[in-house]
Amino acid sequence: MKIGGTPYRTIWVEDDGRSVGIIDQTRLPFDFVTLTLRTLEEAADAIRSMRVRGAPLIGITAAYGVWLQMLGDPSDAGLEVACTTLLATRPTGSNLRWALGQMRSALEPTPPAERSDRAYTRASELADQDVATCRAIGEHGLTLIQQALEARGGDGPVNVLTHCNAGWLATVDWGTALAPVYRAHDGGIPVHVWVDETRPRNQGASLTAWELGQHGVPYTVIVDNAGGHLMQHGRVDLCIMGTDRTTAHGDVCNKIGTYLKALAARDNGVPFYVALPHSSIDWSLANGFSEIPIEERDADEVGSMRGRGEDGRVAQFAILPEGSPVSNPGFDVTPARLVTALITERGICKASAEGLAGLYRSS
Amino acid sequence: MKIGGTPYRTIWVEDDGRSVGIIDQTRLPFDFVTLTLRTLEEAADAIRSMRVRGAPLIGITAAYGVWLQMLGDPSDAGLEVACTTLLATRPTGSNLRWALGQMRSALEPTPPAERSDRAYTRASELADQDVATCRAIGEHGLTLIQQALEARGGDGPVNVLTHCNAGWLATVDWGTALAPVYRAHDGGIPVHVWVDETRPRNQGASLTAWELGQHGVPYTVIVDNAGGHLMQHGRVDLCIMGTDRTTAHGDVCNKIGTYLKALAARDNGVPFYVALPHSSIDWSLANGFSEIPIEERDADEVGSMRGRGEDGRVAQFAILPEGSPVSNPGFDVTPARLVTALITERGICKASAEGLAGLYRSS
Repeated sequence: MKIGGTPYRTIWVEDDGRSVGIIDQTRLPFDFVTLTLRTLEEAADAIRSMRVRGAPLIGITAAYGVWLQMLGDPSDAGLEVACTTLLATRPTGSNLRWALGQMRSALEPTPPAERSDRAYTRASELADQDVATCRAIGEHGLTLIQQALEARGGDGPVNVLTHCNAGWLATVDWGTALAPVYRAHDGGIPVHVWVDETRPRNQGASLTAWELGQHGVPYTVIVDNAGGHLMQHGRVDLCIMGTDRTTAHGDVCNKIGTYLKALAARDNGVPFYVALPHSSIDWSLANGFSEIPIEERDADEVGSMRGRGEDGRVAQFAILPEGSPVSNPGFDVTPARLVTALITERGICKASAEGLAGLYRSS
Repeated sequence: MKIGGTPYRTIWVEDDGRSVGIIDQTRLPFDFVTLTLRTLEEAADAIRSMRVRGAPLIGITAAYGVWLQMLGDPSDAGLEVACTTLLATRPTGSNLRWALGQMRSALEPTPPAERSDRAYTRASELADQDVATCRAIGEHGLTLIQQALEARGGDGPVNVLTHCNAGWLATVDWGTALAPVYRAHDGGIPVHVWVDETRPRNQGASLTAWELGQHGVPYTVIVDNAGGHLMQHGRVDLCIMGTDRTTAHGDVCNKIGTYLKALAARDNGVPFYVALPHSSIDWSLANGFSEIPIEERDADEVGSMRGRGEDGRVAQFAILPEGSPVSNPGFDVTPARLVTALITERGICKASAEGLAGLYRSS
């Protein structure tokens, strides 16, 4: 997607052919800064420090991290170090594990002398594959936005509500939940996005708002409390959310607060869609509610916030009474019964075992 | 309630007998500062600048503001200026209008020379009446907390979820939604409060957390997104909310986001109570959804936040990409069908025309 009129991906190989460029997402939305990663350690650190975030992008960054290591040490030991180091960067990334598995499978049978070339090719393939997956999600989801426009009698804009950031910044390009929005906007369909702020880390306010604004998609930031009221008043045509993990029965684990929006959507007859690549389906799980452990995250995420002060400096500031106890569950599970449909790269299906099996199990 | 072990009200007559003390609530939760109001203008400014806030406390502050004016100018013109100035401080306070009406009724038939004494007496009566009302809400609500404790087999603490600040800081003492909590805590019933942060103005994080902490009630701050997840996991025994305005049919207008919690409560079988003094019932309204206009508030409330920086200074911080469009509806309406019961100073009733009429219309 575009930043200031220029097309970007979130990760790219630099012109020197020996390093990888990324956007430092910790600096957004205040400053647009790119960084160059030259070593395995720099790649691991970029993931650990959340300069890159979003399950798909983390996976691709890890793949390129293996490549950077192969440039310096293509030995079996070097490969082992790369995979171990990268896997340890974040606790719960199924894409991270998957991408490292892909790199290992490609490199183990490859003679060390050829490993850097092979790693480069394989990482680039995985990146392109991610783009193709997201673009396909966008194509399928586009039909839902078109339907919403028809339901409005052709009178735009179609109002989409989204939570957190499942945009192109979380992937290599296009995004998941926002891919249909970009596809619609680029195709001339008038679309407007209600952007949930998404406390405590404010990914909506800082990342989704920023990327939509840079690409030129009309949006409005709201606090997480406001979406229900907007739905009551007919100001939301459809919700599109991302997901971190979806069970084989269609339960959706996503950023904390997603469940509340699903309840409001059902109460007001607003379609509630979840966009996902197949890689986020966990076939081993049936009941998301009882089987997905919810990470309790750092209290400091709730107790403080990052912003730009009156002096122009970006800093962390405290917002609670000193010593306040805090609970910070990072995700919640939206039961399949509240999900109108899943949007995947293979098409749209019911959020159910049958729905998912129809798209995936036959393969 | 207590601050650092000392009992306080939110507003009091100072020892000089010619001025009024308040807590500067704009300085909370970072600094506890009291202010002395000596004139009508200072009282009006305290309301306008939200140094005092909460419908009941605003009403009482206005009543004392009339007294301050009568000390200096007890003429008919002086009374008129006082009422006009104070009524104009906030756009939508039914308590404000009511309290000024009470003062006017008491003072108009009183000879100017006796007006300051009469104003003092009447304002103090209104303040005491507010305390009695809130204490009665607390007594009635206490039975619901006792029931919740029994439902837990006597195994505390009872977990109460609340939104925004309907605590003693919003009234003269006790609060509305928190009155049952204080009553339970003071009576030795183990109670713990989940405090919704309540974006955008953070009244939960800054006021509710502060007042509970000062009084010694165990609490935990959560982001507004987290309550649904906690209810799914059985970690909330009951919700108690305040309300700005309740229709004759039991629809509840309250701080934005209340509706989402009501939906989650229903989905998980958690009782959802709303505590209110009779003064917040608007008998002229039936359908809250179609008849209550929702104030669209300043975008800056969403785009910036107040906090304490690393240098210890409290300041305003920008948290959005520059120029982000924002929508900021201040309230939402929770339909009566989602409200388990109303807790009033006269008792507990169904959120319906019949329920309210049973408590109030016979009088």
